[in-house]
Amino acid sequence: MSLAAVLARLDANADSAVERLFELLRIPSISTDPAYKDDVARAADWCARQLAEVGFDAAVRPTTGHPMVVAHWRGKVANPGAASVLFYGHYDVQPVDPLSLWETDPFDPRLVSRDDGSKIIVARGAADDKGQLLTFIEAARAYVAETGGMPCPVTVFLEGEEESGSPSLKPFLTANRAELAKDVALVCDTNMLDRTTPAITATLRGMVKEEMTLTAASRDLHSGMYGGPAQNPIRALAKVLAKLHDDQGRVTVPGFYDGVPELPAEVKAQWENLGLTPESFLGAVGLSISTGEEGRSIAELVWARPTCEFNGITGGYTGEGFKTVLPAEASTKISMRLVGDQDPEAISRNFRAFIEANLPADCKVSFAPFHGTPALRLAFDSPWLDKAKAALADEWGVPAVVMGSGGSIPVVGDFKQILGMDSLMVGFGLDDDRIHSPNEKYELSSFLKGARSWARILDRIAG
Amino acid sequence: MSLAAVLARLDANADSAVERLFELLRIPSISTDPAYKDDVARAADWCARQLAEVGFDAAVRPTTGHPMVVAHWRGKVANPGAASVLFYGHYDVQPVDPLSLWETDPFDPRLVSRDDGSKIIVARGAADDKGQLLTFIEAARAYVAETGGMPCPVTVFLEGEEESGSPSLKPFLTANRAELAKDVALVCDTNMLDRTTPAITATLRGMVKEEMTLTAASRDLHSGMYGGPAQNPIRALAKVLAKLHDDQGRVTVPGFYDGVPELPAEVKAQWENLGLTPESFLGAVGLSISTGEEGRSIAELVWARPTCEFNGITGGYTGEGFKTVLPAEASTKISMRLVGDQDPEAISRNFRAFIEANLPADCKVSFAPFHGTPALRLAFDSPWLDKAKAALADEWGVPAVVMGSGGSIPVVGDFKQILGMDSLMVGFGLDDDRIHSPNEKYELSSFLKGARSWARILDRIAG
Repeated sequence: MSLAAVLARLDANADSAVERLFELLRIPSISTDPAYKDDVARAADWCARQLAEVGFDAAVRPTTGHPMVVAHWRGKVANPGAASVLFYGHYDVQPVDPLSLWETDPFDPRLVSRDDGSKIIVARGAADDKGQLLTFIEAARAYVAETGGMPCPVTVFLEGEEESGSPSLKPFLTANRAELAKDVALVCDTNMLDRTTPAITATLRGMVKEEMTLTAASRDLHSGMYGGPAQNPIRALAKVLAKLHDDQGRVTVPGFYDGVPELPAEVKAQWENLGLTPESFLGAVGLSISTGEEGRSIAELVWARPTCEFNGITGGYTGEGFKTVLPAEASTKISMRLVGDQDPEAISRNFRAFIEANLPADCKVSFAPFHGTPALRLAFDSPWLDKAKAALADEWGVPAVVMGSGGSIPVVGDFKQILGMDSLMVGFGLDDDRIHSPNEKYELSSFLKGARSWARILDRIAG
Repeated sequence: MSLAAVLARLDANADSAVERLFELLRIPSISTDPAYKDDVARAADWCARQLAEVGFDAAVRPTTGHPMVVAHWRGKVANPGAASVLFYGHYDVQPVDPLSLWETDPFDPRLVSRDDGSKIIVARGAADDKGQLLTFIEAARAYVAETGGMPCPVTVFLEGEEESGSPSLKPFLTANRAELAKDVALVCDTNMLDRTTPAITATLRGMVKEEMTLTAASRDLHSGMYGGPAQNPIRALAKVLAKLHDDQGRVTVPGFYDGVPELPAEVKAQWENLGLTPESFLGAVGLSISTGEEGRSIAELVWARPTCEFNGITGGYTGEGFKTVLPAEASTKISMRLVGDQDPEAISRNFRAFIEANLPADCKVSFAPFHGTPALRLAFDSPWLDKAKAALADEWGVPAVVMGSGGSIPVVGDFKQILGMDSLMVGFGLDDDRIHSPNEKYELSSFLKGARSWARILDRIAG
């Protein structure tokens, strides 16, 4: 059976795979900083060369920003009728400051042994996303080496602007729609549940952002002269914000929960048994009590329920000491995370109407332009989900958790909207990988068993 | 009758009085800016020389900051048994920036005629407080010239730090308590009701300042990862601030209205008939609806009712664009204006207890150190008030309004606490004098009739 041979080859080549990852980690491909532009380009070249070495038809494709790497498998395919896949990863990394908090050079990767015998790879980008993207390339390398081909049609698509807002992504996908639209995208930029439990991310929350300013008087007023009769926009803002959540933690905007699906019973039961309690989940950040909707588990709240959160508020004098001013305005930034079929435009419309309806006297409100993206999800009964679950259970010996992501992964939305393609999100990062922070690491087991997992997933997709 | 002669002399000397005021206005005595230190000293010298010229025993008294001017009348007193008075004013002025908004040089005073024939004196300090303090010195000058003495024992006390927080005032009053404690202080730093209606300010609101910070998580959180279950301190702050006022505009802190006196019926009636409506009072700043306690007139709200106002609020990300952060903390600055016998310490204690009692789950609150000052007032039946009312009615031909001040005049509190002395606040400024702003002005009628008013008040006090 060729899968067993592919897996054996991955195990045999583990050391050289780590050495290849180290080569990529040594390139400081910081996409936000123009000083590293050439390094970003070097990382793209390196990826394309690796893919070409495996046998892909690989090219570095220029954009007005950092380049894309696109690599098509044109060789033998074991099952040419199988679903075609587009694998996505990104070869750019976050900046490293504050450098002083790194224990070693962020671009001098090290393999560090823990007391329990496990090992970690420490470097900027080890987990986000160089280690993750190489799991797939190593799986492909072993497949080709062992079988002379791939089990199903494969295209690899890597970007170098993920950490700087992906300005070139939408134009590139739009311009190359026919070339890149496949049956399913494989996205490797997410986490496991913990070090021994694999996970598939099936839902991503959407978002509506509202930036609003309440204005009262035409200028700042002296609180001794006007305090009392004149409307205070901070008071007005507090009054209206306080109405947005009821005492059970539910958002009070009319129609807010339209299109919010209830979880399938078995998913709800699985999530309730993940051991994510308010104490365990919130304890690490100094909290212990859930302030979300009553009667929902932590996992459900973060992965499958909408929110309305205040991200910033400002008004009046906020410096040292006191100024007894009655400010002319106060403003706030609010983000609403969306799930299921919630319609971002309807949410924004209803939110604004609610604010207007609850505005205290002598106050005006203005809003920044609409900004919203819908939630995304793989149906819980999607065939891609079933194949990945089976493959991951085979590799890790325990069932994979189908989870949600509280945040968003913009490329998944772009794949859906521009290429009409669902994404299967499988990744091997851990919550403690310190991505975007000093001393980023990736578990060696994530890297090696991640590559084995992709080999198994490709086999299931082909099979 | 000597008063009539004193008034006639004031009228006859009007032009030279204006020229003296212009001399003082030409000295840029900006107390906040060290570059003008010598000019501040020059202004003190000028005032002392004027008082000496009138016949006072006048001295410039050094402090660690700008000097004080103290001048005692040691000559003839018509009624040596009459009440002794301490006249207070300040010879320093506000900075002038933005200079570009001044139509003429702020230290080149001009007499400008209006279309209706009235005249104004335009210069920095014309109203605040050089014009006001000279009304008294001119009255004294005329008294001495006409009668060879003063009607009652008089000391003049001028400071040069009023616009920079009066750092030397308390130490100076404490060190010279016996010398400066008189039967009553005459303070000339307040306004008339309008150009033709004189006013006495009988109450000053006190203040409690609270600076409080709500803390939830031990660090800023990603709203995608923690939004929902984790407490958001902005949400918590909005909830608790929204509870501080009920729907009738009353402050809900228990015991908040303890010690708040109701107005005497005749004062209440007078104030309701001043023509201060929400539209007239708030219209100039773009508002029209009173948000203060229901059923109270504008004058009562600003002069005789306590408030709880939010002066500043901040939390989370407040820059351009968006950061979908769940902040670790949010904070606010709150000032409560006090009236009557409200006890600042009890107010602060009750406020903090109310906040603690209404704090949402998983939240802590911390407060800056207590800062409070009580309200001050002349009893509405005080004899000083009666004398001043009679004198002002004689001069202006209409009854004087006894009003309150929404803000505070710190020196009045210091006179009360350190010297045990009440203050009779009579001033001739107008709300549109643009003090602290470009193109500050003082009505010529305020200056000339102000001097006549002080002559009449001194006569009544002696009388």
